Amino acid sequence: MPDIPNIALSDGIVYMDHAGTTPVDPRVVEAMLPYMGAHFGNPSSIHTLGQEAKRALDEAREKVAKVLGCRFSEVVFTGGGTESDNAAVKGAADALQATGNHVITSSIEHHAVLHTCQYLENHGYEVTYLPVDKYGMVDPDELARAITDRTTVVSIMYANNEIGTIQPVAEIASKTKQRARELNRTVVVHTDAVQAPGLLDLDVGKLGVDMLSLSAHKFYGPKGVGVLYVRRGTPFLSQQMGGGQERERRSGTENVAGIVGTGVALEIAESERAWAVEHCRNLRKHIMDGVTSQLRGAHLNGHPTLRLPNNINFSFEHVDGEPMLLGLDIKGIAASSGSACSSGSLEPSHVLLALGQSADLARGSLRLTLGRSNSSQQADYLLSVLGELVKELRGLPSMTTAADA
Amino acid sequence: MPDIPNIALSDGIVYMDHAGTTPVDPRVVEAMLPYMGAHFGNPSSIHTLGQEAKRALDEAREKVAKVLGCRFSEVVFTGGGTESDNAAVKGAADALQATGNHVITSSIEHHAVLHTCQYLENHGYEVTYLPVDKYGMVDPDELARAITDRTTVVSIMYANNEIGTIQPVAEIASKTKQRARELNRTVVVHTDAVQAPGLLDLDVGKLGVDMLSLSAHKFYGPKGVGVLYVRRGTPFLSQQMGGGQERERRSGTENVAGIVGTGVALEIAESERAWAVEHCRNLRKHIMDGVTSQLRGAHLNGHPTLRLPNNINFSFEHVDGEPMLLGLDIKGIAASSGSACSSGSLEPSHVLLALGQSADLARGSLRLTLGRSNSSQQADYLLSVLGELVKELRGLPSMTTAADA
Repeated sequence: MPDIPNIALSDGIVYMDHAGTTPVDPRVVEAMLPYMGAHFGNPSSIHTLGQEAKRALDEAREKVAKVLGCRFSEVVFTGGGTESDNAAVKGAADALQATGNHVITSSIEHHAVLHTCQYLENHGYEVTYLPVDKYGMVDPDELARAITDRTTVVSIMYANNEIGTIQPVAEIASKTKQRARELNRTVVVHTDAVQAPGLLDLDVGKLGVDMLSLSAHKFYGPKGVGVLYVRRGTPFLSQQMGGGQERERRSGTENVAGIVGTGVALEIAESERAWAVEHCRNLRKHIMDGVTSQLRGAHLNGHPTLRLPNNINFSFEHVDGEPMLLGLDIKGIAASSGSACSSGSLEPSHVLLALGQSADLARGSLRLTLGRSNSSQQADYLLSVLGELVKELRGLPSMTTAADA
Repeated sequence: MPDIPNIALSDGIVYMDHAGTTPVDPRVVEAMLPYMGAHFGNPSSIHTLGQEAKRALDEAREKVAKVLGCRFSEVVFTGGGTESDNAAVKGAADALQATGNHVITSSIEHHAVLHTCQYLENHGYEVTYLPVDKYGMVDPDELARAITDRTTVVSIMYANNEIGTIQPVAEIASKTKQRARELNRTVVVHTDAVQAPGLLDLDVGKLGVDMLSLSAHKFYGPKGVGVLYVRRGTPFLSQQMGGGQERERRSGTENVAGIVGTGVALEIAESERAWAVEHCRNLRKHIMDGVTSQLRGAHLNGHPTLRLPNNINFSFEHVDGEPMLLGLDIKGIAASSGSACSSGSLEPSHVLLALGQSADLARGSLRLTLGRSNSSQQADYLLSVLGELVKELRGLPSMTTAADA
């Protein structure tokens, strides 16, 4: 078992929102600092300082390529997971525009993919939003049947950020490719794998995808850095133009310190993956058993087994998400009601609605996403606080309006 | 005079490539570190850690707004200067698509603008690339005459990154707005101000522009963070979609540490501006006088007076840029032959060609861009090294082919 660092959190907070973001691993910060200090060169400069920075980029790219099982040249660094998702879907659709204008995705993708698809719809594209079953699973055969002689891009996430459901990406990719061969056309397969690092296998050969998105701050790396894997030969038009960095696929001076940190963070996440899966799975079972036994009207969202080992998502009858989160926060527990990006909103989660859940029940959802810093003592503490809180909130009138004020 | 820190460079390098990138100010790193440590929350999360991060974003936005003389809500943080330029030109063109498809820019813009314009040309837009005079100046009247009843966007840089020429942006903006009123239409004015912070006035009221791009790593901030000022009411469609961050103008989890660093760096750059201008101007005069007096066949590129106080750009007859840079590098001097982004390339600078310079002479260009760490001792050292080097290279056959190998 690797030596897992005890990540210090401010004021002893019980942090159970690792799908929202993670603290930067101290080993990652240490690796980044020299590139914010003496080694600050621009990798495009031909002088020594520039070439040092270039070498640091190369090393980070090598680390990422190793974890993805891909070529060095297939790794593109971006400004984040959202940029990677946008660039993948738009970049492939743009490159294949002459051959078709149909994109297939699922109804439970992250907004970075969904809103990009809506943008394409406003620009003359047609998009199929595949439904999912009550566990949030896409049906690969239904997907294959949706492919037409106008389809150019398929984008299905690896694991859902809210409910943790893991899609059969390898099967989706293989059935898409088979159908594309039958239609004698090119269909690019992208997967948003932002939630996967440190928990699932990232080997792109096994997954069979052409493009894959990652976000460093989801695996104890810095915010503001993403990865886009682009398989060699994949039709792709750059969506950010300029100096031609990243082999013309993503212009802009490279965030050297951030990219170095991303390489180190991904290497660590992969090397500690077996430990993290076991650690999170044990804590998850403890919490899920506790919730189910002590609280009535708690519905598990997502797949019972094919889910991220660190993801817990319950909807509680007769409870609103926001007062629950605020109640937990007062007790020092950081959690979420869905994706972090939407948690300012009082709209029920589009993911839970897609599972067929009522808007009322969906508003009472709680997402707990576990990570390295969590312990069984913290799990016990969460259970005691949550039990009291849910009972208390059920005794009160709806807080939605008050919380909105 | 403010207390200017002595920025430590690795191995005592004489760094004269500040237009390429700058070291991160230690005060900036110090401000960033807490947000890579205990205060790592996602600003979209409603728990305490998230709200702390949100407050840090707000403070950084306040600092930037103060320097730009704009509203808090008009500041958008991006992933860099290139993203800001891309988003500005595409975002405004996209928003005004129903009213026209004509964009006006200059032939000496950064590639982040030029290549974005070429992308638009491939998507049905028409672009006017205005010529410049021998000093690199755009003629505001010629620009106004180029505006048609199809024009939607004008993008002219504040100061050129290679030759330092400062454009009459206020006059350009005012004449554009006047012409737009005559034509009873909306024309958005954008300026790439990436080279301006710490050297020129950034007040957007005085400049009269609707949009303005900055890049933090050009003013002693971190790489991977940009600013896009978007005046209230400016037609703009977001080019990066997802969770709706930055008031729906730039989705993606905010790079909190980087943004905090950007706020601090811009505040420092502005507070030390008068000192920096004086400091750079003195060193520049010293170097320019030295070059002119000791080396024949040295042609100053750019405007003799209306230029960035830290910019020196000479073309040397019978010398190639690349061996000159390598020769300087061996002697511990970091310089550039043009923009950092293109310095891997042996193509002569598009900027120098636009001034009417021959390809041969343009290949012998040397850009020295000064900054806080430079001293008059360093300027003397540069002059002695450069004098020897140019004479030596003129005694040799062309190195272009050898350097390419």
